[in-house]
Amino acid sequence: MTRTVLESKTKTVVIGFDEPFCVIGERINPTGRKKLAAELEMENYDTVLKDALEQVACGATVLDINSGAVFTNRMAADPRYADNNFVEPPLMKALIEMVQGVVDVPLCIDSSVPGALEAGLMAAEGRPLLNSVTGEEERMELVLPLVKKYNVPVVAISNDDTGISPDPDVRFAVAKKIVERAADYGIPAHDIVVDPLVMPIGAMASAGQQVFALVRRLREELGVNTTCGASNISFGLPQRHGVNAAFLPMAIGAGMTSAIMNPVRQVEMEAIRAANLLMNHDENSGEWIRFAKVVEAVEGGLSFAEASAAASQAAGGRRGGRRGRG
Amino acid sequence: MTRTVLESKTKTVVIGFDEPFCVIGERINPTGRKKLAAELEMENYDTVLKDALEQVACGATVLDINSGAVFTNRMAADPRYADNNFVEPPLMKALIEMVQGVVDVPLCIDSSVPGALEAGLMAAEGRPLLNSVTGEEERMELVLPLVKKYNVPVVAISNDDTGISPDPDVRFAVAKKIVERAADYGIPAHDIVVDPLVMPIGAMASAGQQVFALVRRLREELGVNTTCGASNISFGLPQRHGVNAAFLPMAIGAGMTSAIMNPVRQVEMEAIRAANLLMNHDENSGEWIRFAKVVEAVEGGLSFAEASAAASQAAGGRRGGRRGRG
Repeated sequence: MTRTVLESKTKTVVIGFDEPFCVIGERINPTGRKKLAAELEMENYDTVLKDALEQVACGATVLDINSGAVFTNRMAADPRYADNNFVEPPLMKALIEMVQGVVDVPLCIDSSVPGALEAGLMAAEGRPLLNSVTGEEERMELVLPLVKKYNVPVVAISNDDTGISPDPDVRFAVAKKIVERAADYGIPAHDIVVDPLVMPIGAMASAGQQVFALVRRLREELGVNTTCGASNISFGLPQRHGVNAAFLPMAIGAGMTSAIMNPVRQVEMEAIRAANLLMNHDENSGEWIRFAKVVEAVEGGLSFAEASAAASQAAGGRRGGRRGRG
Repeated sequence: MTRTVLESKTKTVVIGFDEPFCVIGERINPTGRKKLAAELEMENYDTVLKDALEQVACGATVLDINSGAVFTNRMAADPRYADNNFVEPPLMKALIEMVQGVVDVPLCIDSSVPGALEAGLMAAEGRPLLNSVTGEEERMELVLPLVKKYNVPVVAISNDDTGISPDPDVRFAVAKKIVERAADYGIPAHDIVVDPLVMPIGAMASAGQQVFALVRRLREELGVNTTCGASNISFGLPQRHGVNAAFLPMAIGAGMTSAIMNPVRQVEMEAIRAANLLMNHDENSGEWIRFAKVVEAVEGGLSFAEASAAASQAAGGRRGGRRGRG
């Protein structure tokens, strides 16, 4: 069976066909969050720390750390800050050290800047996931040697130098090319986690069926684990959470083994917990019964994050939260 | 492609691999509803009429009519009422006539009493679904001739004279036996809708995976449509609706084409509408966008039934509701 092993300082998380769905928390990402980027520019990590703790309490077992910040004010004073190769490596190091100070879960090092990926690989304890390589020639040449050197697994996104193909057969071929190229470096298929790319269903009516078929093929023909940016499926539609909450169980049923997503959302997390139960990945329904108590606490007036944090603390930080900071 | 065609007086509903999931409303059933049984004993059909209208407004495209009432008071006065062969045939006729007076959707005639099935077949307009035959010899001999005589489709439940097997291979074999026996009567496979039997996941951890695999096999090897009593999956667990709402999309992804269920539940209906969209069975996301407005109305304070009825009326009774009574 395909098992992608991730590690933090003391914890192991396995992405695998016989494992509960792996939720990779996406919130520590300044790309789409101007307020967070401004805080980081001031070396204020309060939001990062809060997001780390909340996401783990809500059920993320891996945290994505994206260093793609634009430091507008520093840029005005020092032109070097216009270059992400200058900004991101030290920021990635700082983010990882901060996050490792409060939670003990494996990290997913997320950057388009090779120097930031390597800074992250040096700063991360255990065995992080690298995010990402694509089928672009230059990207494979930059990232795959790092994957080999640090012996870590990597997210492989199925686009290449021609862009993102709407044809799922082309996206499969790109994934296959990355897996084969990785093999040339001595990187095994079980260390490649393919993102088959989820298209918005509102724009492409076949997007759901495409992904379900692709996930089955990737699993059966290439033997790889899979991940996705789950919320993209509902882009542009009303009541998006309802679409996401059906998409995730269907993707899990088709064999998807992880997603990069916001875990601080009850509807989606409920769908994943129920899908784990229905896939026989929840012994004695234990996780579902614990989660049902969180839902009850939400019905009683708490926010999902508050109820999850209370349940997590009651369980003695079992889910990866550290008791103190550092 | 397998298409099971149902008809009311003027409407056609197709259960099929390329059709939106068929929701068969289960509420008109006095078996587990003492208050309803007492009303029927008094020849009071108010609840039946309300349930018919509500279920259709909420999205049921077929209504199950179960005549399994126990008339305690009449029984005390007249011992013939202790016999369901005496009680059910006229009750089935009355229920069907009442329901057909207010809604124009195909019916599912549901009884363990052969006389009630035939009374229902005579009273129903169009082409109803018969519910049900099993793999029990006596039941096949009683029901299959009715299926042939009236040229209607039938629900086939995969238990036999030895009971319900926990082994999915045995349940598949029972379904196959019914399909073969039906063929002896000249009944085609596309008029058999198999219920593979859903076990409670809390009692049998493999129950979900069993059903998903069975549905795929029934579809690929026997070419039949499938149905289930969906809520059985969550029996005995807390927060049942969350389990049901993940089970339904996963079952639909595996190829399930209908369910006998309570449609007056937003969570489950939302999961089904989203799954239809994700299966590319919702042209231009039209049904989802309409449903999103119902969800908004619920967020604004209406009950799901009220919001659905308002949306249904605004659409001019398009979903099967008649404007007046009879």
